[in-house]
Order: sequence, then C-alpha cells, then structure tokens
Amino acid sequence: MNNHFVETPEPPYIAVIFTFELRPDDREGYEARLAEMNALAIQQDGFLGEEGVRLDNGRGLTVSYWRDMDAVDAWRRHVVHLAAKKAGREKWYQQYTLRIAEVAFAKTFAAGE
Amino acid sequence: MNNHFVETPEPPYIAVIFTFELRPDDREGYEARLAEMNALAIQQDGFLGEEGVRLDNGRGLTVSYWRDMDAVDAWRRHVVHLAAKKAGREKWYQQYTLRIAEVAFAKTFAAGE
Repeated sequence: MNNHFVETPEPPYIAVIFTFELRPDDREGYEARLAEMNALAIQQDGFLGEEGVRLDNGRGLTVSYWRDMDAVDAWRRHVVHLAAKKAGREKWYQQYTLRIAEVAFAKTFAAGE
Repeated sequence: MNNHFVETPEPPYIAVIFTFELRPDDREGYEARLAEMNALAIQQDGFLGEEGVRLDNGRGLTVSYWRDMDAVDAWRRHVVHLAAKKAGREKWYQQYTLRIAEVAFAKTFAAGE
C-alpha cells in the first residue's frame, strides 16, 4: 500500500482521506482483507488511484482519488466493501477518521525538470 | 511529524494533501527546517492541525487542515514559508504533489465506543 504519486486528472475530483490506527491483533488477517479490497477498488468505475503510507506501529494514512462523488458513493455502498468495513471495525481498527473532500487545486514538482 | 487524529470542526474546512519523496541528501538540514515550519504553521490563523506519516525511505504523505481557503492562501504566501519552499525544491525534495481540497464529509470511529 505504499504507493506514491498517483497521476490524477485536472481538478475537480474527489479525495478520500483515511487516517487510521490498527489494533495489534491479527495483522495477517487484516493484510489479506486489505489486499482483496484494493484489488476490488481498482476495478471500480471512477477509481483514480491511492497514495498511502503505514508505519510499523500500525498507524497510517491513505488518500484515494475518485472521479466524482457518485463513484465514491457507489464504492461506499458496495456490498463486499460494506462487509469488509464491518470486519474492520470489529477486528482490526482501533480508531479511524474518514474525510471526503473535493480537490480544487493541484500542482506537482519533480527535481531537475 | 507522525501526528494522528487531528480533531477538526464540522465540515466544510480545507485539507492540504502533500505527497512527497525526499532526496537522500541533507536529511538533518531538512528536519531542522521542517521543525521550524511546523512551529510557524501552528501559529497561523486558521490552522487546525496536521496528520502525517513518513517512511525511512524518504517517502511520505501529510494532510494539514485549515479553517478556510483564505487561511491556506495566507500560509502559502507567508514570506518565511516561501523561502522554505524554495529551499525544499532546491535541496530536499525529489518530487511532490500538492493538492488543496474542501472537506465535505467526515466521520470517526473508535473501538469500544
């Protein structure tokens, strides 16, 4: 999940900011379910990519990008995703904050360009 | 900079999403300048907090939260911050993407609540 530098279109588009802390238990179960969800997410209409980092202490931050709010809503209501989120709250997450935001401005920098 | 779980007001407010990769050189110089900038940022009117993680490989992702776009613009134009950003491009950053987004929805979860 340590992706970086998703190439997004010109704004506007949607950013879903997910800040989390995992419980210490069942990291393997979490990793397996996360991999399934990531594989499913990239198949969704309107998914643009995800940037994220996670530390060894179980804290992490990911931002996924979506074409529009309809695409986000469809993913949030996806039945397989709903089941995974329920399991996440019951078994894996100590705490999280989810924020949905409309990107209004973006710029990139690369050294030497 | 590995803060977590900034308490933000009800939306709308602004999220500044900063995805970056550092060059291997002069990490101490970078850390010192970053600490200065963080100390200055928290003094700015409208700054709500920052969530971020950085990996040992120099890749990282931070999200800072601001009351409104005017607060973001004032910080982006702050003369000390402008000088630090110039130094960042010249010396420390290999690559970055900056996105400014309006948070429309937020929810939190905590296990056991």
